[in-house]
Amino acid sequence: MAQLYRRVALIGLGLIASSMALAMRRAGLAAQITGHAPSAQTREAALELGLVDTAHDSSAAAVAGADLVVLCVPVGAMGPVAEAIGPHLAPGATVTDVGSVKQAVIAAVAPHLPEGVHFIPGHPLAGTEHSGPRAGFAELFENRWCLLTPEGADRDAVERLRALWEGMGAHVEQMDAAHHDLVLAVTSHAPHLIAYTMVGVADDLRRVTDSEIIKYSAAGFRDFTRIAASDPTMWRDVFLTNREATLEILGRFTEELFALQRAIRTGDGEHLHAYFTRTRAIRRGIIEAGQDTDAPDFGRVPRR
Amino acid sequence: MAQLYRRVALIGLGLIASSMALAMRRAGLAAQITGHAPSAQTREAALELGLVDTAHDSSAAAVAGADLVVLCVPVGAMGPVAEAIGPHLAPGATVTDVGSVKQAVIAAVAPHLPEGVHFIPGHPLAGTEHSGPRAGFAELFENRWCLLTPEGADRDAVERLRALWEGMGAHVEQMDAAHHDLVLAVTSHAPHLIAYTMVGVADDLRRVTDSEIIKYSAAGFRDFTRIAASDPTMWRDVFLTNREATLEILGRFTEELFALQRAIRTGDGEHLHAYFTRTRAIRRGIIEAGQDTDAPDFGRVPRR
Repeated sequence: MAQLYRRVALIGLGLIASSMALAMRRAGLAAQITGHAPSAQTREAALELGLVDTAHDSSAAAVAGADLVVLCVPVGAMGPVAEAIGPHLAPGATVTDVGSVKQAVIAAVAPHLPEGVHFIPGHPLAGTEHSGPRAGFAELFENRWCLLTPEGADRDAVERLRALWEGMGAHVEQMDAAHHDLVLAVTSHAPHLIAYTMVGVADDLRRVTDSEIIKYSAAGFRDFTRIAASDPTMWRDVFLTNREATLEILGRFTEELFALQRAIRTGDGEHLHAYFTRTRAIRRGIIEAGQDTDAPDFGRVPRR
Repeated sequence: MAQLYRRVALIGLGLIASSMALAMRRAGLAAQITGHAPSAQTREAALELGLVDTAHDSSAAAVAGADLVVLCVPVGAMGPVAEAIGPHLAPGATVTDVGSVKQAVIAAVAPHLPEGVHFIPGHPLAGTEHSGPRAGFAELFENRWCLLTPEGADRDAVERLRALWEGMGAHVEQMDAAHHDLVLAVTSHAPHLIAYTMVGVADDLRRVTDSEIIKYSAAGFRDFTRIAASDPTMWRDVFLTNREATLEILGRFTEELFALQRAIRTGDGEHLHAYFTRTRAIRRGIIEAGQDTDAPDFGRVPRR
């Protein structure tokens, strides 16, 4: 794989940034990687793990001379970070981000970027419930999608960024920022809020102990707790910044849930069976699209 | 492992029965295994896979001479099956089941069993989204819980059944049937209905195509589709027979969801952050209890 950037600056050194660093190193996509994190402990970990060549306590210092700057901070922190680095960006540099919401990030970041800098918002659809520089691994983006919402950005700059993501193993697609936010509200944001809610309800229930819930969580609930263990700050910001789309989907969700509750109450087995048969078909599509495995043990036991 | 039963009759030959057959064979727990399924195709598959020594189109024939009979049919079919086999059960035989609901199964099955037969309701907390005799695997119950609700059944018979489940790799716990139904409503039944609902909502949404949902389902939604791909008949019966507990939990769920929606609408980030921090702690407990792995790739990439 050819080297694509001379110097990549990672602003924020959590799960996504550390995985990017490892994936870029593996494929030789960047000659040099610099990083910024406010926490000295995080910077030390990033250096120790070889994620970055230099770690800076100032974001301005980290971006100096970089031809690619990647904003890897929670969505709510994107604006302040852009404001801090704006005056220090090299002419012709590309700025991208990895935020889960695109319209709000564009509104917060774009005003702070000088002319001549290419802003190409991005969002890799990959993650785990773990956080921090030690959570990263080079395979995180393999066979996952990265969505770019370039909206008129320089074509060569977009193609170079696409090549970077492809070099890290991802498939790249472009779409409009508003559409991105709606698609993600359905596939990610609403499901996360629902999982958080269910786990909270279980914890509240006096007649069932936490230890019972934990012991007997194999069926169904376990997958919810995995989702509900995601980073609280990141997710708070997602819901506050993708408010409209998330609330729209949640509104439809409660409407549908009430209809199913009513079917249970009235004993309408046909309605339930037809609904469950339909949702089963969607699962087939996901497996055929290669976005999950079909292993009967949920893929948790290694098989070769 | 010592042989525990001379002849085990599996009534129904789906995922659970076929996994039990393989697990019993592996550990030498049963001298002989007979089976019943209404479908000729299923019976042929069970014979071909070596799950059973004999396969019967009549449930009465399958239970003849069996010292253990396991009802492995959807909860709604337990009553008719018990009625059919009742007169043909051997004196001193144990009858158990693997249904996800216990009070309704007891009410449906117990009246049909003759004196001298030990009825010990059971529920292994294990499963996948796959169905049928070819979906089984011997490791399904390993390190999973099996709950028994014996309510005054013969102690020796209970201990023998416990030994069988332990021989198949499960941990066994006893509890009251009503408590079982509440615990499962929280950890399994409500989460399943919620997942079914969310997947249905996504499918309904006109502005986002199914192919987009399928492609971009990596984050959150994918786990929901896995749950929502479970057997429609089994789950219809679960909701209809564990109606009260499921509706109670769903009521609490919607109440809590409305509070979180309100926090999003009013921009109450503190409320959201505190809630998400609390649910993250529950996940830790589940990993420590050994009911899931902590692999950063969600366990989908084999690692040794």
